[in-house]
Amino acid sequence: MNAEIIAVGSELLLGQIVNTNARFLSVQLAEMGINVYYHTVVGDNPDRLRSAIQIAEGRADLIIFTGGLGPTKDDLTKETISTHLGKKLVTDENAMKSIELYFERTERIMTENNRKQALILEDSFVLPNEHGMAPGMCLTLNERTYMLLPGPPKEMEPMFLKFGHSALLGKMDRQDQIVSRVLRFFGIGEAMLETEIEDLIDKQSNPTIAPLASDGEVTLRLTAKHSIFETAIELINQTEAEILARAGQYFYGYDQTSLMLELTKAIIDKGWTIASAESLTGGMFQQEFTTIPGAGSLLKGGIVCYTNEVKQELLNVNKHTIEELGVVSAQCAAEMAENVAKLLNADIGVSFTGVAGPDELEGQPVGTVFIGISLKGQPTITEKLHLGGSREANRIRSVKYACHFLINALKKTQNA
Amino acid sequence: MNAEIIAVGSELLLGQIVNTNARFLSVQLAEMGINVYYHTVVGDNPDRLRSAIQIAEGRADLIIFTGGLGPTKDDLTKETISTHLGKKLVTDENAMKSIELYFERTERIMTENNRKQALILEDSFVLPNEHGMAPGMCLTLNERTYMLLPGPPKEMEPMFLKFGHSALLGKMDRQDQIVSRVLRFFGIGEAMLETEIEDLIDKQSNPTIAPLASDGEVTLRLTAKHSIFETAIELINQTEAEILARAGQYFYGYDQTSLMLELTKAIIDKGWTIASAESLTGGMFQQEFTTIPGAGSLLKGGIVCYTNEVKQELLNVNKHTIEELGVVSAQCAAEMAENVAKLLNADIGVSFTGVAGPDELEGQPVGTVFIGISLKGQPTITEKLHLGGSREANRIRSVKYACHFLINALKKTQNA
Repeated sequence: MNAEIIAVGSELLLGQIVNTNARFLSVQLAEMGINVYYHTVVGDNPDRLRSAIQIAEGRADLIIFTGGLGPTKDDLTKETISTHLGKKLVTDENAMKSIELYFERTERIMTENNRKQALILEDSFVLPNEHGMAPGMCLTLNERTYMLLPGPPKEMEPMFLKFGHSALLGKMDRQDQIVSRVLRFFGIGEAMLETEIEDLIDKQSNPTIAPLASDGEVTLRLTAKHSIFETAIELINQTEAEILARAGQYFYGYDQTSLMLELTKAIIDKGWTIASAESLTGGMFQQEFTTIPGAGSLLKGGIVCYTNEVKQELLNVNKHTIEELGVVSAQCAAEMAENVAKLLNADIGVSFTGVAGPDELEGQPVGTVFIGISLKGQPTITEKLHLGGSREANRIRSVKYACHFLINALKKTQNA
Repeated sequence: MNAEIIAVGSELLLGQIVNTNARFLSVQLAEMGINVYYHTVVGDNPDRLRSAIQIAEGRADLIIFTGGLGPTKDDLTKETISTHLGKKLVTDENAMKSIELYFERTERIMTENNRKQALILEDSFVLPNEHGMAPGMCLTLNERTYMLLPGPPKEMEPMFLKFGHSALLGKMDRQDQIVSRVLRFFGIGEAMLETEIEDLIDKQSNPTIAPLASDGEVTLRLTAKHSIFETAIELINQTEAEILARAGQYFYGYDQTSLMLELTKAIIDKGWTIASAESLTGGMFQQEFTTIPGAGSLLKGGIVCYTNEVKQELLNVNKHTIEELGVVSAQCAAEMAENVAKLLNADIGVSFTGVAGPDELEGQPVGTVFIGISLKGQPTITEKLHLGGSREANRIRSVKYACHFLINALKKTQNA
């Protein structure tokens, strides 16, 4: 089976947004063993869309469309495919109900053009939209499969994972089992990790090893093919063991996990609670912590202390520490972590102080960061970082480093 | 002149990277008044690349290629175009010299395949690469222009800006000036906004009106063409005035601004400071506020109060409020806003409490949010929202709504 991904939307051709949908779907299809030979982007224009469909039909037996399913006049993917394939548009009652419910729940008034979103291609298999209004759909005609997905990634991605993926699996004649596993590393650069395992990458064929770096993390995707599922798994296990023997100290988890998620697991294991005091990161640690459903019960809360006044008066940082050592100091980080844990009655206190940029502070260069970690019954730890990125990158990395240090510190208390 | 952008690289089709080059070039070409009708992505395969070129020649008179100019075996863009157009590859002496210099400077040994990077298409105009080794090139044949650019964005972007842009300008017969302006709206859905201005969109031709929705915001991009610059501006001004007469109460700014940036401007205008108390949003407001450089001096700090204990003991929310009305209540939001302003000695207090999901809380459905706003010398305001998205979407929208309410509240104090 080979596929083409057609993204529909003038906003892509104007450069207002990037085609991340093509990337997401390409990764998914590669894992399923479906070759993607082309991506196409076309605007909200029926003639040019029709022409793109005809070209795709000449070179792919699976065509996945993203975008153009919304309520407005320039959303015309369904209409164009309907005319092209000679399949009528009919109202899907379930989709209609969920649109009406959405407007009821949000107490907003439904305009007539929203009804358009419940129309589906006759004879198609509906892919429900659990994060928006427009349903997706899948239709096979003349041995070619057409899948229509919405444009917004937060609707498209869960729809594909929950409904689209299995709809496609049913259409494939699968001879080879494809197994894929992502290993996640932190604290080592991509070039360095690649050097460590260069010989493994050079001799790779099954499984393949694909490194990817982003935001200070490096991942290795291992993908194995074999007619027997268990053998494919075994091939991956062997390669993983060889990799971890070289770089295991930087490994922190598999697949879709994150440092923050691993941290919440480590805290749950201890049955502890946490609080944070943030200057440099301005609340980013707490905000990311609480994006994880259920993490709220582990977080007592926290204090964002952007001014010296708040550090001193609300967080009780010693006046002499601030005046003599400065707020960008290990001592200040230590007091912030200890005091926020005390003040909020938490087992763990974590703190961030430093110079995010763009200007230096207290004579310290941009990228100087102190992280304080106070664990119940343990001496307080402080860590100093020298980061080299932009303001935002430095904040993001500081939060990741804090997770990394906290996970390691919690592991040590478990072993003790 | 209309263009197609062809990105060459199997790493794009595997989803290892996103095609940000197409976005960058699209923005550049739109500003120059060149219509982009298609983006294509094709792998490192000469047959499929040749087929993509033939299709592009049938529908574009400018074809811009990115990628496939490097030293390795799978870099074959030049070779494929050379065969296709019947133009020989010849060594460019300047490019050869700069490659040799690069290896001298970095004290690395030059391998033979690096010489390949100095090859250019016969009769083409060379675009020097100041950030890498492979030069770009531009060639016009049979009234069609072919531009070849390297794949890495840090080489491609400066090359296009410094050399590619002017090479294209020379090939355009420029009669029209193109002016574009983005209007940003909040608090109104895309379908509703479109219904309000349906007749304007229907009769649109110059300027064109392109709506786009994301994360609860809607933008309208107005683009006008005219031989006289001032007239193009005037056409946009007229359409903008008509749109704002209908939906002006939802309009908040132009082009690349954000609600958070507009809020910081409004606070600077007053010479005030702000503090936040966040339950539902877990620090997201403060974190986003402090992403804006310089905003730190407006923010006293804040408290993330995830537990009732912290709300009561640190933030002094009345015990009876929590026990009788609940934490998901207007009264709790009001006290949180007032108390955080008092505690941190700020002129403005803003608070967030509610049910982000996935589970309901205190019998209130997911998406119920209360925002409290306390302005110095004013009665406290509370607002109730019913949001319908995912946990993360509800948090993002709550922060945007708070900015929206705060901007409006600050405007009223200015008028008073």
